[in-house]
Amino acid sequence: MTVRIGVIGTGAIGRDHTRRISQVLAGGEIVALTDVNRTSAEKVKAEVAKTAEIFETGEALIASPKVDAVLITSWGATHEQYALAAIAAGKPCFCEKPLATTAEGAKRIVEAEVKHGKRLVQVGFMRRYDAGYVALKQAVGAKIGAPILVHAAHRNPTVPEQYVTPMAIHDTLIHEIDVLRWLLDDDYVSARVLYPRKAARSHAKLRDPQIVLLETKKGVLIDVEIFVNCHYGYDIQCEIVGEDGVAKLPEPMAVKTRLAATLQNPILTDWKDRFIDSYDVELRDFLKAAAGGGVAGPSSWDGYLAAITSDACVAAQEREGEPVAIATPARPALYN
Amino acid sequence: MTVRIGVIGTGAIGRDHTRRISQVLAGGEIVALTDVNRTSAEKVKAEVAKTAEIFETGEALIASPKVDAVLITSWGATHEQYALAAIAAGKPCFCEKPLATTAEGAKRIVEAEVKHGKRLVQVGFMRRYDAGYVALKQAVGAKIGAPILVHAAHRNPTVPEQYVTPMAIHDTLIHEIDVLRWLLDDDYVSARVLYPRKAARSHAKLRDPQIVLLETKKGVLIDVEIFVNCHYGYDIQCEIVGEDGVAKLPEPMAVKTRLAATLQNPILTDWKDRFIDSYDVELRDFLKAAAGGGVAGPSSWDGYLAAITSDACVAAQEREGEPVAIATPARPALYN
Amino acid sequence: MTVRIGVIGTGAIGRDHTRRISQVLAGGEIVALTDVNRTSAEKVKAEVAKTAEIFETGEALIASPKVDAVLITSWGATHEQYALAAIAAGKPCFCEKPLATTAEGAKRIVEAEVKHGKRLVQVGFMRRYDAGYVALKQAVGAKIGAPILVHAAHRNPTVPEQYVTPMAIHDTLIHEIDVLRWLLDDDYVSARVLYPRKAARSHAKLRDPQIVLLETKKGVLIDVEIFVNCHYGYDIQCEIVGEDGVAKLPEPMAVKTRLAATLQNPILTDWKDRFIDSYDVELRDFLKAAAGGGVAGPSSWDGYLAAITSDACVAAQEREGEPVAIATPARPALYN
Amino acid sequence: MTVRIGVIGTGAIGRDHTRRISQVLAGGEIVALTDVNRTSAEKVKAEVAKTAEIFETGEALIASPKVDAVLITSWGATHEQYALAAIAAGKPCFCEKPLATTAEGAKRIVEAEVKHGKRLVQVGFMRRYDAGYVALKQAVGAKIGAPILVHAAHRNPTVPEQYVTPMAIHDTLIHEIDVLRWLLDDDYVSARVLYPRKAARSHAKLRDPQIVLLETKKGVLIDVEIFVNCHYGYDIQCEIVGEDGVAKLPEPMAVKTRLAATLQNPILTDWKDRFIDSYDVELRDFLKAAAGGGVAGPSSWDGYLAAITSDACVAAQEREGEPVAIATPARPALYN
Repeated sequence: MTVRIGVIGTGAIGRDHTRRISQVLAGGEIVALTDVNRTSAEKVKAEVAKTAEIFETGEALIASPKVDAVLITSWGATHEQYALAAIAAGKPCFCEKPLATTAEGAKRIVEAEVKHGKRLVQVGFMRRYDAGYVALKQAVGAKIGAPILVHAAHRNPTVPEQYVTPMAIHDTLIHEIDVLRWLLDDDYVSARVLYPRKAARSHAKLRDPQIVLLETKKGVLIDVEIFVNCHYGYDIQCEIVGEDGVAKLPEPMAVKTRLAATLQNPILTDWKDRFIDSYDVELRDFLKAAAGGGVAGPSSWDGYLAAITSDACVAAQEREGEPVAIATPARPALYN
Repeated sequence: MTVRIGVIGTGAIGRDHTRRISQVLAGGEIVALTDVNRTSAEKVKAEVAKTAEIFETGEALIASPKVDAVLITSWGATHEQYALAAIAAGKPCFCEKPLATTAEGAKRIVEAEVKHGKRLVQVGFMRRYDAGYVALKQAVGAKIGAPILVHAAHRNPTVPEQYVTPMAIHDTLIHEIDVLRWLLDDDYVSARVLYPRKAARSHAKLRDPQIVLLETKKGVLIDVEIFVNCHYGYDIQCEIVGEDGVAKLPEPMAVKTRLAATLQNPILTDWKDRFIDSYDVELRDFLKAAAGGGVAGPSSWDGYLAAITSDACVAAQEREGEPVAIATPARPALYN
Repeated sequence: MTVRIGVIGTGAIGRDHTRRISQVLAGGEIVALTDVNRTSAEKVKAEVAKTAEIFETGEALIASPKVDAVLITSWGATHEQYALAAIAAGKPCFCEKPLATTAEGAKRIVEAEVKHGKRLVQVGFMRRYDAGYVALKQAVGAKIGAPILVHAAHRNPTVPEQYVTPMAIHDTLIHEIDVLRWLLDDDYVSARVLYPRKAARSHAKLRDPQIVLLETKKGVLIDVEIFVNCHYGYDIQCEIVGEDGVAKLPEPMAVKTRLAATLQNPILTDWKDRFIDSYDVELRDFLKAAAGGGVAGPSSWDGYLAAITSDACVAAQEREGEPVAIATPARPALYN
Repeated sequence: MTVRIGVIGTGAIGRDHTRRISQVLAGGEIVALTDVNRTSAEKVKAEVAKTAEIFETGEALIASPKVDAVLITSWGATHEQYALAAIAAGKPCFCEKPLATTAEGAKRIVEAEVKHGKRLVQVGFMRRYDAGYVALKQAVGAKIGAPILVHAAHRNPTVPEQYVTPMAIHDTLIHEIDVLRWLLDDDYVSARVLYPRKAARSHAKLRDPQIVLLETKKGVLIDVEIFVNCHYGYDIQCEIVGEDGVAKLPEPMAVKTRLAATLQNPILTDWKDRFIDSYDVELRDFLKAAAGGGVAGPSSWDGYLAAITSDACVAAQEREGEPVAIATPARPALYN
């Protein structure tokens, strides 16, 4: 069965997912497109979705009987309304990060979904589909014993002037927040932020780097270095220390050369290359579940907890060194 | 455009490619199946190609107007006849290894294709699509200068008693024969085989391990260790020494653990896992080219030269230590 | 010139240093031995210092005109008195860790040395002589730009029941405290300790593992994992993040094998093997300087600051999560 | 006991060994020096052996009752006469490579030593004392099962015009010839040389790189790449394939940095740095054995077999591709 997909928002990521479903993956067909900028939707139709119909609004697209499932890749502030509309229509939707721009918004989606009684929202946390993280999760379960500590780093070569301190949480740490919860199968109870001196390449409104310390219900202590002007590359590190040993996230595949008195291999510099394969895998997972009328993968509950945790981390940024509690609401049965 | 595919031969690899096109990759649809064992074709239809029609013969399948392009995944001895039939019908075909069981047979396919005036055959040399080899080829071109030496190894944990000495060439070295020609953009001029003592785990009719030495037109000297009872794993090594440096094929991605006084990561043991991603990539390449009515990727010329080289290597096995010349015929313009 | 050495304390480390000077290193001769247990001194004389004279007390040994320089390898509580006696006698002395059992005691040694007007005490912080740390310090200076963050780990396979929480500072972290000050060429301003849940293999009176966070004058933030029941090995990790890049302490030299589906190399399990070569190098440095009547290497000032820092870290252990200030006194000119 | 050492030949290596014994190692004293150029001996005396006596000839030095043991570090052509003189005088001697400039000369030394009835000659094959090779030999014995294949490489960044093809054997491969015999505990039975095209940076009278293939009595097949204008560094590689697995010589210790989009570590470029620690260890071994009046380590038998093997390899260079037999004489009981 081919799932008929409508795409809301045809910017960079919307266009890219459209291309994936049209040209790369089996099982889906892009039948509908919409964008606040109609020209953008027309361009994407011409390029990678020739048979799609263009709709005036996201709501109209969701309502169309032609559309089986929805991709929400519009501007973040609009995610909530479209996710709620998709739930109301009973159609599976894949929603890019963030699920909503506030924890309150995410909570409304969770509540609507719970009321509907069936999962319909997959959030675009693609790292859960990365082969390295998947292998790491297996090693944690099978080899190193129960986790006690996590050492992680999220480094970008550079960020623009508009990137201010809280964005280190909302745009950057958000990935570790979700993927570590999933890796550890645990929930957060507190966050704390420490700053070394500011890096010379940082900006006026950005404390960079910083160390975020998260504690979990099971007592795991996590330190994450966020360094978004590290200069040398886009580098994601994750090491888990368990009762019996230590497991490390693999480095991306690279050819080692011996050249000019140096044994070397390239480090990526563009985040878009780092998890590129995971986008295919996550959408394949969406198409497969949507063919059965539902969804799997990261849930709106995961999106909601990520929002709550992000808010606590931002509060912790403002109270350097102080612990900020993270209150996880009771988990509805739908998400067990 | 969706390419309508017919599959000839629904054994393990035929079933797997059928599944790929039905469930994994965009752009193709399995519309026809055939197998000498009709029950096998019916089973594959039920499992992964529900809308396909079952044909009595490969020839009938090729001739059907429903079929745009053909996958030849039948018993090796039948490849030649189906490839010739596909060429006669003007339909793109993807032919698993070997292109033909003799160099003469491969030559007939080349001649038919040249006469037809257009490439229609892609041979299943999937290593060319492996991300590691692709990155290695880039490093060779961009970093280490013109190649001079290649050190390679092809190790299997174990082979059954029926695997006799010449199979080390036809079934095992065949992959290095093709992928090194492609990596180096060169042709072979001679082969030589040397044997150390036989490994304790080898069999009565198998000299194992062995070293095959190949020389190329441009003067590159290649040594390949073939060790098919190496016990410890399935391990593919390739190092290229150039004028300015050395480049090495990456190891497969793996989680490193620190456990029990050992820093360790798993080595694969099953060859099917080693290049599993490349099968997707090669078929995607086939679907894309077939949509335009042609093919790209490894050609019947590549298959023909692999057959000639294999024959020389087997002759070299029988004359231990002696060089055996490899005469490469003039390359038809079609393959430039 | 051969330096005539007297050794105070012939336990394990005293015997080992005696052997080094007698049998391994040029430039020194063990001429005098003493121990509270005379039998121990006689045994060491018989084994590795045949021509040495045995003295009744450390003070008598220090005073002997036969003795040019002194090794203090007695019980920790006696280090201070012997170091002060050596300074009073104007003789170079090598004093094993700790310089004194309290910061006050270390301060008295510093004051005596300053009054004497010349450095006479080298403290046994052998990591500064490890080839890996030396290379790391060079890389920090030459390649990665000014340091901003340090991530370190100090892991032991197991410790006995008597090892209680503060010993994680005094016996374990003490090495990082000194070597990181030296690596960074900086001083500490605060310490903080965080605990994850306790490891299953820990003991009643030991919080294990723990994270110690140190901040320096120049604004570097250091996190050190101490995990003394990590089970898998003795493992020392150190990574320095600078303005331009990251440098990592090398792993100890090890043969990599491919065996049983695993690429592996051994990890050490006994701390005595990890820095074994550095003991030779530190004593060579001592002999060389002592031949000229003075000392080089880690000074009593370094020992004093290590004691101050340790005290702060123990206080921080008791106030989980709270920062504890580290007040570094003004550095006497002698130690510039 | 301090061994009183006389040094014959005070060029670079003679001076360096004199310094080692005077300043680095316990157990020896340089009491005598001689050199064809007396000024050189006087300079070394002034620098690193102040109490040594200068002798007019090597023979007079060997005969002196002041001298317990001898280092032969003179011009290669004189090694034989001094080794024979030391044997005649019953004094242990350490002889730098080559033991003699011809196999016949080496044989005369073996015969004299056998007649004397006791080992008195240690040959300067320092790789046997390298921690990496020692660990590799342990891994071969303990882990990978009986060896079957060896893949090795000996790469230098560059050599001068005077370095002609046979020097690739006598000056370069000589190290692998000895260390692999020792690693495998085996003898050679044949050699064969193959050439790829010549590297662009090679010289008129030098075929570079080349592959030397050696076969042993136990049936091990060895391939060694010699590439002395490899440009990128001084790089020694050795991998041993056994019945159960593969073991690899460790790379030299190096700090890994992440810098400028590259994960990298330095490769050595000067051969003098590669085995620098082994010189200390081999002389320590010499001093220890000489204190008892004998020698251990690489013997004159090892030197003789290295000479025989080198001659065969040079013959094999001249008969490209042809196997050249290596006849190992019966081993005298003295060398068992």
